[in-house]
Amino acid sequence: MLPFQLSATEAARKIRDGELTSEELVQSCLDRIEEHEGTVGAWIHLDKEYALEQAKAAQARRQAGEQLGPLHGVPVGVKDIFDTADMPTQCGSALYSGRTPTRDSMAVALLRAAGAIIMGKTVTTEFAFYSPGKTTNPHDATRTPGGSSSGSAASVASFMVPLSVGSQTNGSVIRPASFCGVFGYKPSLGLISRHGVLKLSSQLDAMGVFARSLDDLALIGECMMAYDGNDAGMRPRSRPPLASVMAEDPPAKPRIAFVRSPVWDQAEESTKEAFRELCEHLGDHVDIVELPSIFDNAVQDQGLIMAADMSRNLTKVYEDGKDKISPVLCELIEKGRTITAVDYCSAIDRIDMYNAVFDHIMTDYDFILTPATPGEAPVGLDATGSPIFNSIWSLCGVPAITLPILQGPAGMPLGAQLVSNRLDDARLFRNARWLLSQIEE
Amino acid sequence: MLPFQLSATEAARKIRDGELTSEELVQSCLDRIEEHEGTVGAWIHLDKEYALEQAKAAQARRQAGEQLGPLHGVPVGVKDIFDTADMPTQCGSALYSGRTPTRDSMAVALLRAAGAIIMGKTVTTEFAFYSPGKTTNPHDATRTPGGSSSGSAASVASFMVPLSVGSQTNGSVIRPASFCGVFGYKPSLGLISRHGVLKLSSQLDAMGVFARSLDDLALIGECMMAYDGNDAGMRPRSRPPLASVMAEDPPAKPRIAFVRSPVWDQAEESTKEAFRELCEHLGDHVDIVELPSIFDNAVQDQGLIMAADMSRNLTKVYEDGKDKISPVLCELIEKGRTITAVDYCSAIDRIDMYNAVFDHIMTDYDFILTPATPGEAPVGLDATGSPIFNSIWSLCGVPAITLPILQGPAGMPLGAQLVSNRLDDARLFRNARWLLSQIEE
Repeated sequence: MLPFQLSATEAARKIRDGELTSEELVQSCLDRIEEHEGTVGAWIHLDKEYALEQAKAAQARRQAGEQLGPLHGVPVGVKDIFDTADMPTQCGSALYSGRTPTRDSMAVALLRAAGAIIMGKTVTTEFAFYSPGKTTNPHDATRTPGGSSSGSAASVASFMVPLSVGSQTNGSVIRPASFCGVFGYKPSLGLISRHGVLKLSSQLDAMGVFARSLDDLALIGECMMAYDGNDAGMRPRSRPPLASVMAEDPPAKPRIAFVRSPVWDQAEESTKEAFRELCEHLGDHVDIVELPSIFDNAVQDQGLIMAADMSRNLTKVYEDGKDKISPVLCELIEKGRTITAVDYCSAIDRIDMYNAVFDHIMTDYDFILTPATPGEAPVGLDATGSPIFNSIWSLCGVPAITLPILQGPAGMPLGAQLVSNRLDDARLFRNARWLLSQIEE
Repeated sequence: MLPFQLSATEAARKIRDGELTSEELVQSCLDRIEEHEGTVGAWIHLDKEYALEQAKAAQARRQAGEQLGPLHGVPVGVKDIFDTADMPTQCGSALYSGRTPTRDSMAVALLRAAGAIIMGKTVTTEFAFYSPGKTTNPHDATRTPGGSSSGSAASVASFMVPLSVGSQTNGSVIRPASFCGVFGYKPSLGLISRHGVLKLSSQLDAMGVFARSLDDLALIGECMMAYDGNDAGMRPRSRPPLASVMAEDPPAKPRIAFVRSPVWDQAEESTKEAFRELCEHLGDHVDIVELPSIFDNAVQDQGLIMAADMSRNLTKVYEDGKDKISPVLCELIEKGRTITAVDYCSAIDRIDMYNAVFDHIMTDYDFILTPATPGEAPVGLDATGSPIFNSIWSLCGVPAITLPILQGPAGMPLGAQLVSNRLDDARLFRNARWLLSQIEE
């Protein structure tokens, strides 16, 4: 097995035990990138020498007997909306071309503190919205990788790095993970700091991670969770023990709420069929649970909050650079400017109500099972596919994991999304592991 | 000295030591109310028997050897927007007539836990906005007591209770305290829970207290400060040691920033003169500090946020009972409905910037000195006076204390307002005590 094929968990162990050096791992990943980047186009900034420099420094720290972090020597791709003190951060827009922050975002600082090598910056759609970058789907270059964390999903899917970091305001982690056939995790709002990351909506923005195994998702997720007073959406709380709870067996027979959600009619027939088969396989663990009719407005609420917040946060972009942004972003901003404060505040007020309903559902069920995307990655590179199966969960700030366990009609990967109520992330990992074990039986 | 004349601190001590019973104190206060309520009109709900029942129960607890709270047996007046499980809560509106909550607001629950007797509910303006209730100014019944916490300020000023509780969204604690000649304290946002209190604006609503001494303000303030996860504006933190820090002497010569603020031209000439004299008396402790021009919009920002939030939170009141609300409230709600989400979010974003400027000022000064009101209480009972000297501090969620140390041209009381940066409440008390000592010299 070549180093680039290793999971992050295994690579970190080998580096710790002296079976592999960080430089060997990074070099192997760089070779892999060299081979596939021309087709995949996952990176917007990659300085090979600098990546190797970081790997050498990591080795030196190990040789000096320093205490090693859980990601010591392991390369991570970072979506180009996370500020990095040593690399440009351009947010997929010509308007931010050449932008060089002087400080790391909190998320990146925590990755470095955990020993990670920041491999480079991965392609994002324009301002993490819908207008695509250059990335293609590693499974079929005529298809979208999804967005907005396009490069982060594609780089992990094509074995260029074992781990990467993205963000989700609507469907930007779970959707590309589903399309690219990797594991994706959007933690509960408030667990990973957004400080130093492009702000689209403080109500909706969630940081997220990509990996090729559930263990790796938990590994990087835990490293990034630390209280940061600079993010007003966070509260001091103990770090969720993702890995240790995941390692436990469920204490009782897991009960699954299969939630088709108010947008079920937008799922493709093949997706409906795939979930029917999955539910059949899971047998009496599963009940079909309908969300009450108050959720009929939830997708619209997400859109309204996103439009208003993005209009506000991209005011300068719109007013000074309107001719340099895509029509789709322009339209969103203009729509957002017409929304009233009362409608905006009403939508925000409903979030608590939606979460109260989830809490109620979760008194009877262990997790929600629901599609990650309407179907497999669509053909074409001029759009990134629909986030419609992610909007409600983004709105409510609940944790979501997508598992690459299904397939579409063209043989492309398709994710199964698991959702829990807010802050119950560790148990969601345990249930995800249990679900995988049921599939592998 | 009759019991009703005692400070809360002294009354609590006497009750603890067995020199006075809660029943004697409450009866003395009830007699005082009997005598003055016809003119002052501070109460909207007062059940004398029930108040005495509470006092008897407090005595029984003392006799049973139970541990006594810091307010054991001391009567407190509560603004009629705080839910009380055992009394109506009608918010000064016919639309809420007869409304009987089933639970205490967190603030009231904490007062009860501290041993306080909930004397009754004090008059608020309509929905704590501008349309006055029946209360008059205890120093001159032809003048307004200020609002919206009219009854709370007037009941303490007329020695009906030693302590009372109010709230401030714009100027509803500091203004009536200044007009009625009592001490008023609006703590930093996030120190007293708003759960179970009429919500006008989660961005602006602050709970506050009235007393006839600084010691009493600190006493009741501390009792009401406890983390409550039901108020999303709170964070877990240790209780600010108001009383113990206040008891200390300033470690160095206090430096005062006299801030005339962008609304100085709305202060009456006599107020300007009173502050000139005060500053002269304080001598080289004082510098005149101009707020930078970015504050020129701050009062407008406060008004915009308040209008939008009140429109949202009073939607049902407006849509179902438009004919039963005052023209001034109707106008505010209609104005609020036209505000865009982008303007609203922009105003909210600027709050952090304003606070950053205060933090900067506070690296050179110990506190801000500024008028509490444009002048003494105006003649007339059809309005409650201007909150313009409170808007910026309410917007920023900083702590404010008003001291009844000045006089207007008609001999009415006039407050001097002390302000500090957010969460530095305990040192603000220490500095307020120091300022009082300078006046008394």
